Amino acid sequence: MPDPVDLLIEAKWIIPVEPANVVLENHSIAVDKGRIVAVLQQSEGKFRFAPREIAQRHDHVLIPGLINLHTHAAMVLLRGLADDLPLDVWLRDHIWPAEAKFVSPQFVHDGSLLACAEMLRGGITCFNDMYFFPQATVKAAQTLGIRAVIGLITMDFPTAYAADADDYLAKGMAVRDEFRDDPLLNFCLAPHAPYTVSDRNFEKVLTLAEQCDIPVHLHIHETRKEIEDSLKLFGMRPIERLRRLGVLGPGLIGAHAVHLEDHEMRLLAQHGCSVAHCPGSNLKLASGIAPIVPMLQKGVNIGLGTDGAASNNRLDILQELRLALLLAKGSSGRADAIGAHRALRLATLGGARALGLDGEIGSVEVGKSADLCAIEIDDSLLSPCYDPASLLAYSAGREQVSDVWVAGKARVSNGTLLCCGMIELKNLAALWQNRIRS
Amino acid sequence: MPDPVDLLIEAKWIIPVEPANVVLENHSIAVDKGRIVAVLQQSEGKFRFAPREIAQRHDHVLIPGLINLHTHAAMVLLRGLADDLPLDVWLRDHIWPAEAKFVSPQFVHDGSLLACAEMLRGGITCFNDMYFFPQATVKAAQTLGIRAVIGLITMDFPTAYAADADDYLAKGMAVRDEFRDDPLLNFCLAPHAPYTVSDRNFEKVLTLAEQCDIPVHLHIHETRKEIEDSLKLFGMRPIERLRRLGVLGPGLIGAHAVHLEDHEMRLLAQHGCSVAHCPGSNLKLASGIAPIVPMLQKGVNIGLGTDGAASNNRLDILQELRLALLLAKGSSGRADAIGAHRALRLATLGGARALGLDGEIGSVEVGKSADLCAIEIDDSLLSPCYDPASLLAYSAGREQVSDVWVAGKARVSNGTLLCCGMIELKNLAALWQNRIRS
Repeated sequence: MPDPVDLLIEAKWIIPVEPANVVLENHSIAVDKGRIVAVLQQSEGKFRFAPREIAQRHDHVLIPGLINLHTHAAMVLLRGLADDLPLDVWLRDHIWPAEAKFVSPQFVHDGSLLACAEMLRGGITCFNDMYFFPQATVKAAQTLGIRAVIGLITMDFPTAYAADADDYLAKGMAVRDEFRDDPLLNFCLAPHAPYTVSDRNFEKVLTLAEQCDIPVHLHIHETRKEIEDSLKLFGMRPIERLRRLGVLGPGLIGAHAVHLEDHEMRLLAQHGCSVAHCPGSNLKLASGIAPIVPMLQKGVNIGLGTDGAASNNRLDILQELRLALLLAKGSSGRADAIGAHRALRLATLGGARALGLDGEIGSVEVGKSADLCAIEIDDSLLSPCYDPASLLAYSAGREQVSDVWVAGKARVSNGTLLCCGMIELKNLAALWQNRIRS
Repeated sequence: MPDPVDLLIEAKWIIPVEPANVVLENHSIAVDKGRIVAVLQQSEGKFRFAPREIAQRHDHVLIPGLINLHTHAAMVLLRGLADDLPLDVWLRDHIWPAEAKFVSPQFVHDGSLLACAEMLRGGITCFNDMYFFPQATVKAAQTLGIRAVIGLITMDFPTAYAADADDYLAKGMAVRDEFRDDPLLNFCLAPHAPYTVSDRNFEKVLTLAEQCDIPVHLHIHETRKEIEDSLKLFGMRPIERLRRLGVLGPGLIGAHAVHLEDHEMRLLAQHGCSVAHCPGSNLKLASGIAPIVPMLQKGVNIGLGTDGAASNNRLDILQELRLALLLAKGSSGRADAIGAHRALRLATLGGARALGLDGEIGSVEVGKSADLCAIEIDDSLLSPCYDPASLLAYSAGREQVSDVWVAGKARVSNGTLLCCGMIELKNLAALWQNRIRS
């Protein structure tokens, strides 16, 4: 007797990510109660399972859902507000004033809703966020059914969201307490950056992170200036300061990490830290190119992030994957420095491991959550196809994402977002655009 | 009485490129006999013209057709055949053997047809090609109605196409003679590269280029190795060799130009040479990052190229535009090094000028050919929109290209290629894929 299951997905190709460098042809994935219960040949799948629903994706490559390891989702509302400016002018004269004036729970909710919609349509099933009013981001993620890791932000100075570090932390912990039972939600402590958080407040963050057993997500070594300032103020580079404070550890996710000395890469590797590589944002803000080839050689775990839409301006991990791959080759001088399979691994399992979720997501393996993305390749733009991994990394774009499942539930189908209509989203964006532009 | 015209295109926004840094809102373009006869406010357009056809594109940005200044169109058939390998292994063990075995007039025709289809769908209205059997590329371009600049290739060694330099040149000139009356076709002499063409053959090329008054298109300073080899063999770097041979001049289009000393950039500028910047290919093959910010500062004219699909793997100038913009910022350390308008200018008028066609194409100006591209921005993925140029450069993708006109004739409409069906293209690709893979 065949086993009843919720869903059987047949795909032309599956790249499971784990095991590495494997492409399965004409295989199926059986899903039950949100989890992958089998990965097997299509012919066997038909025989072994009695699915309540079959998804036949015979012109598709199926991959684990992409993970966006560093973003500020709500900043979608500031997308393209002030591009092509020097970083300090951009921040000081445009982004910070706009944030001071407009950021509110409603801003964060609406911006996050647009961001979650964009991410899902691009095959992203999980994002690691850092922004104000995280409760509003939670609501947006829940509406669209995307998996989220919510950063409980803290910094030394006041904003509309909180008065001081204790206030930030208290508000953050309250959000975690309220939503920790949602299986699609996880939490990080998110001390913004070494230049905005004092030693004393890092210590508080560390205590909480240990008590709650959750990761710590911060910006690190993004610009040369931040390193120079740290040398002036603390007599040491930020990573050394974090080391002394005890912040380096397997739960640390450092976003950017553009400027690293060799011994700093080794230090990150030794402590089991992860880096959220954001190649698009780092180029656009002229921060530089993060040295991911030597980092990978030394054993640093790396995931990919888009950063916020104000500095990217697409929340598109497939594009970051291609960019990361190209930059790794171009900056190392070796065309074989990393390949398509490795890049896909960064964009999935690398992110999952950074978040401590590699037992749950990041690959197509039995027992894991069915967070999946199907990419339709039946288009002459993607032809011929000698290697599905290469096609995915170098030729495909998010416009080819046809289906997205989070924990076995369809969230995008035939390229269309479920759970929220396009008109509603466009109206939201238009509303904020008018408000912010005036 | 309103003037009868063939076509009136109304657009929400038009970025004409010339004048620079301008965005026209709610304007129309009147087109007659393939040429732009007016660019004016929509209200005025309705009053002044009696169009045989009206195209209302009220959720769109309209730009000049994109120009792909360096490609090997037919190599689409080798897309993704052997990625992630060191350059020499890739060429010696994969690309060259595949070319030796498969390249024929049919290969070139079918590959070029797929490439032209891909380029048109991505808003490219003109491409500058270099490959064997150029007559076959001509036929493909004519079938789809794309504007082409056909490189009349020559090199010292024999291929299936020609026996020696004289044979290459004779065959090339015959193609030019046959098709020179086609208003959508132009020609370049295309001596492949300084490392594949002798001094004597460069002299022949130069004589022909002067006689015919057509540009010269070659690969230049793409890799460090080619420069080192030239130093060994000729006692000088390739650009110095070209200078002595008299090849530097306003008709020269040097593809790649990744490794340049300051005095070489000045030399290119002084001689009025153009560079075809191919950022994606240069990263993928680990050649490096071309220094376009100092080149632009010194006055070198720059256009954008995709290179062939074997080393890119998308023939997508919008993507190269974004990459060029990001790399210029990231490699110069200045977020304001170049902006969205400047990048669009490279992708249009820069290419036109390089080809000696800036009187004909490259901007939305009265008197020029109506080579145009409309990009639909009515999507929450592209919202909000504070600046259409920024949206175009940083957020949009070729998937948003809705309409393409070449010399006033629609070639893509509502995202769909006219003149050739998707099934025919996919069948062609499948045929060659099976042949080449076996």
